[in-house]
Amino acid sequence: MTTLAERRIDRYRTRTDGVAPLIRRTDPAVWGKTDSPVLRRFDADGYTVLDALLSPAETAELAAEMDRLESDRDLRSDERVVIEKKSDRVRSVFEVHRISPAVAELARDERVAGLARQVLGSEVYIHQSRVNYMPGFDGAGFYWHSDFETWHAEDGMPLPRAVSLSIALTDNLPYNGSLMVIPGSHRFFVPCRGKTPDEHYRESLREQRVGVPSEEHVTELAGGRGIVQFTGAPGSALLFDSNVMHGSANNITPFRRSNIFLVFNSVENALEEPFAASAPRPAYVAARDFTPVR
Amino acid sequence: MTTLAERRIDRYRTRTDGVAPLIRRTDPAVWGKTDSPVLRRFDADGYTVLDALLSPAETAELAAEMDRLESDRDLRSDERVVIEKKSDRVRSVFEVHRISPAVAELARDERVAGLARQVLGSEVYIHQSRVNYMPGFDGAGFYWHSDFETWHAEDGMPLPRAVSLSIALTDNLPYNGSLMVIPGSHRFFVPCRGKTPDEHYRESLREQRVGVPSEEHVTELAGGRGIVQFTGAPGSALLFDSNVMHGSANNITPFRRSNIFLVFNSVENALEEPFAASAPRPAYVAARDFTPVR
Repeated sequence: MTTLAERRIDRYRTRTDGVAPLIRRTDPAVWGKTDSPVLRRFDADGYTVLDALLSPAETAELAAEMDRLESDRDLRSDERVVIEKKSDRVRSVFEVHRISPAVAELARDERVAGLARQVLGSEVYIHQSRVNYMPGFDGAGFYWHSDFETWHAEDGMPLPRAVSLSIALTDNLPYNGSLMVIPGSHRFFVPCRGKTPDEHYRESLREQRVGVPSEEHVTELAGGRGIVQFTGAPGSALLFDSNVMHGSANNITPFRRSNIFLVFNSVENALEEPFAASAPRPAYVAARDFTPVR
Repeated sequence: MTTLAERRIDRYRTRTDGVAPLIRRTDPAVWGKTDSPVLRRFDADGYTVLDALLSPAETAELAAEMDRLESDRDLRSDERVVIEKKSDRVRSVFEVHRISPAVAELARDERVAGLARQVLGSEVYIHQSRVNYMPGFDGAGFYWHSDFETWHAEDGMPLPRAVSLSIALTDNLPYNGSLMVIPGSHRFFVPCRGKTPDEHYRESLREQRVGVPSEEHVTELAGGRGIVQFTGAPGSALLFDSNVMHGSANNITPFRRSNIFLVFNSVENALEEPFAASAPRPAYVAARDFTPVR
């Protein structure tokens, strides 16, 4: 019996037996018109920084709302809440746009969904949303990865036609675990070695062991244009391609780092069966409701 | 029976049963004359950056020598070599000034020992020397600590009259685990909770569990003047007080970070019995040969 994935032609093969070479991406990064400086930077680098996407008042309101969620004892037993291994603190809340009306409103905002539509050249829907609380002192980092690699392998996202927006709720400083990006890495798909274990998401949302690029591939990518860190004040944001290589160090400073993540996928790129996993991940991690954001 | 430590008046009590308040340091930071911009900055901040302490040629020669040590298979079984837990790579080589004639020469250099004599206002000897190799990809960070806290508790260093010089052999970047310092923290001694286990150094040179400041104390210190990161090109150096609070995040980048550390102590501050440990640490970690550097 051949599975659907085996019958499909897969230009982004991953979770391979051995180490496979980098695959040059043929799909565009900007699927609409590249007609603004923001879109041109995004196209060239795989990301762009938006210095003051939200006003201080908007940011403060959102931050207060996220603080409320974090201290909501009832929410801790919700499967959408990820608890940090070491500290027993809340690390992430997934599907936060369904939990918080304020985030739902933010996602619909023209500055947010409108920008995603420009990048993806179509109507968009929310593939994933979450708030990440990186605590001070023992905030765990996240090793290098391409989101698309996981979304393709484990969620069945056909093409890298999705875009993420990370909005800073607290200062993102050079030394509190801020996101590092390899500029230009979105042009290369990095096949990762190893079979996806069943229910891999239960572990991988905290610490990833499969879907990890080789050191040689990361070195090759970073050898081109180095590494850039996203730093900024609350209300600033990083718009980044689904396939850009990124990661973060741990945070031992007293300064926590909280960000809201919104991932938009093109309605023309709706999820299918996973390309390299036995079963799709739950809908709170990878939505299967493809209703356009309006 | 009262021990020597119990009979001594100890202004820097640590490894206490409960959490004790910060102790304001009454000893100076600069024990000689504060008669240069470098010494004035050091006095005010507890550290100072020396942009090009060594020439590119000197630095390249030292770096090559340290690479030779790192790949010396015979040296791996030497007790002075610390192997990184996770990766099995060499993390540090202690007493490197006795292993490498080039480092011995460096330590005698007027730009190095002369500077230490100016800070400490006396003849100086080498309390500790080491090379740290922080590998890329899985370089472990080091949590906040004051060196003097350990040297006082475990080595019997009476007063904070020692100074460290960290010389960059590779780029120290904002995102490859570079040292973070809390400016002004050298003015406060942070008592740490917990009894020192026997042979604590075997574990603590890799990962410290005792002699760790409380989160409240670090927050209090960083609440004043924040955090500063030492970044610089190969050949640049950080001169820092023995009691300044410092630490580092992990390094997931492909860019390794190697530094030589030289610690000078005043000959008038020679080691006694440990103030809070059952036995002194080995001489390769805390020298008991107080011969002045000449």
